[in-house]
Amino acid sequence: MPGTPAVPIAGNRFCILGGASLVGSATAGELLDHGAAEVVLFDNFTFGSDAAIAHLRDHPRLRLVRGDVMRMADLLRATEGMAGVLQLAAYMTLSMDRDPWGGLDVNIRGVQNALEACRANRVGKVVFASSNAVYGYGPGVAGDLVEGTPFHSVGAPPAAILYGASKIIGEQLCRDAHRKWGQDYVVLRYSTVYGERQHHRAANALYIIETLERVRRGEPPEVFGDGSETKHFVYVGDLARANRMAFERAATDVAVNASGPAPITTLELVTLVTELAGGGPAPRCVGAEPGKVRLTSGGAFRIAHEEAFRVLGWRPEVDMREGLRRLIAWRDSNEGRVA
Amino acid sequence: MPGTPAVPIAGNRFCILGGASLVGSATAGELLDHGAAEVVLFDNFTFGSDAAIAHLRDHPRLRLVRGDVMRMADLLRATEGMAGVLQLAAYMTLSMDRDPWGGLDVNIRGVQNALEACRANRVGKVVFASSNAVYGYGPGVAGDLVEGTPFHSVGAPPAAILYGASKIIGEQLCRDAHRKWGQDYVVLRYSTVYGERQHHRAANALYIIETLERVRRGEPPEVFGDGSETKHFVYVGDLARANRMAFERAATDVAVNASGPAPITTLELVTLVTELAGGGPAPRCVGAEPGKVRLTSGGAFRIAHEEAFRVLGWRPEVDMREGLRRLIAWRDSNEGRVA
Repeated sequence: MPGTPAVPIAGNRFCILGGASLVGSATAGELLDHGAAEVVLFDNFTFGSDAAIAHLRDHPRLRLVRGDVMRMADLLRATEGMAGVLQLAAYMTLSMDRDPWGGLDVNIRGVQNALEACRANRVGKVVFASSNAVYGYGPGVAGDLVEGTPFHSVGAPPAAILYGASKIIGEQLCRDAHRKWGQDYVVLRYSTVYGERQHHRAANALYIIETLERVRRGEPPEVFGDGSETKHFVYVGDLARANRMAFERAATDVAVNASGPAPITTLELVTLVTELAGGGPAPRCVGAEPGKVRLTSGGAFRIAHEEAFRVLGWRPEVDMREGLRRLIAWRDSNEGRVA
Repeated sequence: MPGTPAVPIAGNRFCILGGASLVGSATAGELLDHGAAEVVLFDNFTFGSDAAIAHLRDHPRLRLVRGDVMRMADLLRATEGMAGVLQLAAYMTLSMDRDPWGGLDVNIRGVQNALEACRANRVGKVVFASSNAVYGYGPGVAGDLVEGTPFHSVGAPPAAILYGASKIIGEQLCRDAHRKWGQDYVVLRYSTVYGERQHHRAANALYIIETLERVRRGEPPEVFGDGSETKHFVYVGDLARANRMAFERAATDVAVNASGPAPITTLELVTLVTELAGGGPAPRCVGAEPGKVRLTSGGAFRIAHEEAFRVLGWRPEVDMREGLRRLIAWRDSNEGRVA
């Protein structure tokens, strides 16, 4: 559909970079359900896993490609004939802390490589997975985080700032590609994702998965500090829908938040997970563990998603009680126990 | 002097990465004047020039090394035996716009390489040249810019945001090196530098050099918009002193602004340059040129340097009238005419 940034799903081919993942597998399912001719999951399996995509492996319109966003040849082949590319491949804060060389390579050069491959193959639209990390961390982060909120970094750990700044750069590389060769793109600033096939790599999602594991072991769940710290999650199924709609809608050259219905405090979260997991001991308040990266804010905050509704017609539908219920049901299933 | 982050200048060796430059040549002179045993100017001459260092070439304690911050072997050799390393090598906004691949390489991987070389060679202290670009551009930038001011990017051109974010990353790489292996460092956030051996690469310094060239050709100088836009410069000699003091003082793991005595509007600046150049036609107001990167702010701002005084005992001494007088005297000299 030349001349319009709208890329219909049905009959088109899509490539998901970093696809063997929580968000990648859910989005692949969403695109296939909406009639995509083919979905290619591209992953180097540094963070991606077979477990994350096991449920899709036999799908006739799904293809798995082992490749690396740091290798142009891999990208040029994988993106050939694609109507849309979803760029998820990234290091998050915890892995950035362990390996800032690899992290900055993938989060910056990886995006440059992906955009260049899309240019060469005339890919209609890129959806870039950014993060609420572009608003930073520390005391400056409070209140409503809207798309124009600046990047705060005072008091945040280096790796969190490196991660946030690398996402700011990724967004600007998309913007630069739009200006320089007319590349259509939508940036979605994900808040912390959770849901079926939850992994252990996101600092904030650990509040969910660690609590669940403690409750299952009969140990009291832990709350850091007094439990009043705010987090704002988004359910993976809602995010898969946001990715799909970012391709479908005519929006381009824009960055919007994709967050869940409402924020939650860590105490509320731990209490809710405990209840949904069948109950257990009362949460224990603990101090921060030395050497462990925790992401703090300046107080209660809410990641506004009104702009995403205006631009894409998207709003989150699954609240935390329902999303956590699904996550726990998945973990209790055969698939979750194997993962 | 193990155990203290103070690195005396006299008797010690220093390496300046990106040294064949405005700031590099002035700092080399400052360090040599203060008794440095050797100063190594390391440059790949992408932006550096022989002209910038011609006045130093025959100095017995100065050594020029052609090398690239993207090549570890070059850096490992150049930093051997150095008490301090000043990391200046960088792309600024205009070159970032032309070549974001090269710019992000040098401004990020180049800093990682430099820090790694310093670690291998047990270099006592790194001084990292950051920029007031870490406060960003556009409508959010106004008032007093202090060290905790967040990064604004709404309304700024992609290359300016890429540049600012790359400097934020460079700072955090220093901080990470301090945490992970105790690397002493000071970050100086330079405002726009001007002075003898002025080049044409900094978007804001063009207001000076282009005005001077127009006046010399008998053309009316140009002011963009209504001339009310604020800029805050720093004289290169003041900055050379700041670099020297950043090595000498016990400060470490800190980032401070290094700006001139006071900001100036572009109309005041153009008028002052015209007067100091011997007078000429009244300035002509022009609109922004399409395709040219101009760096805007949200109104009057001042880059505060009080923290640099508290931390390093440094404050700027040369005001714009005197600094511009020196710049113009240099251009009118034999050396300036050849450059």
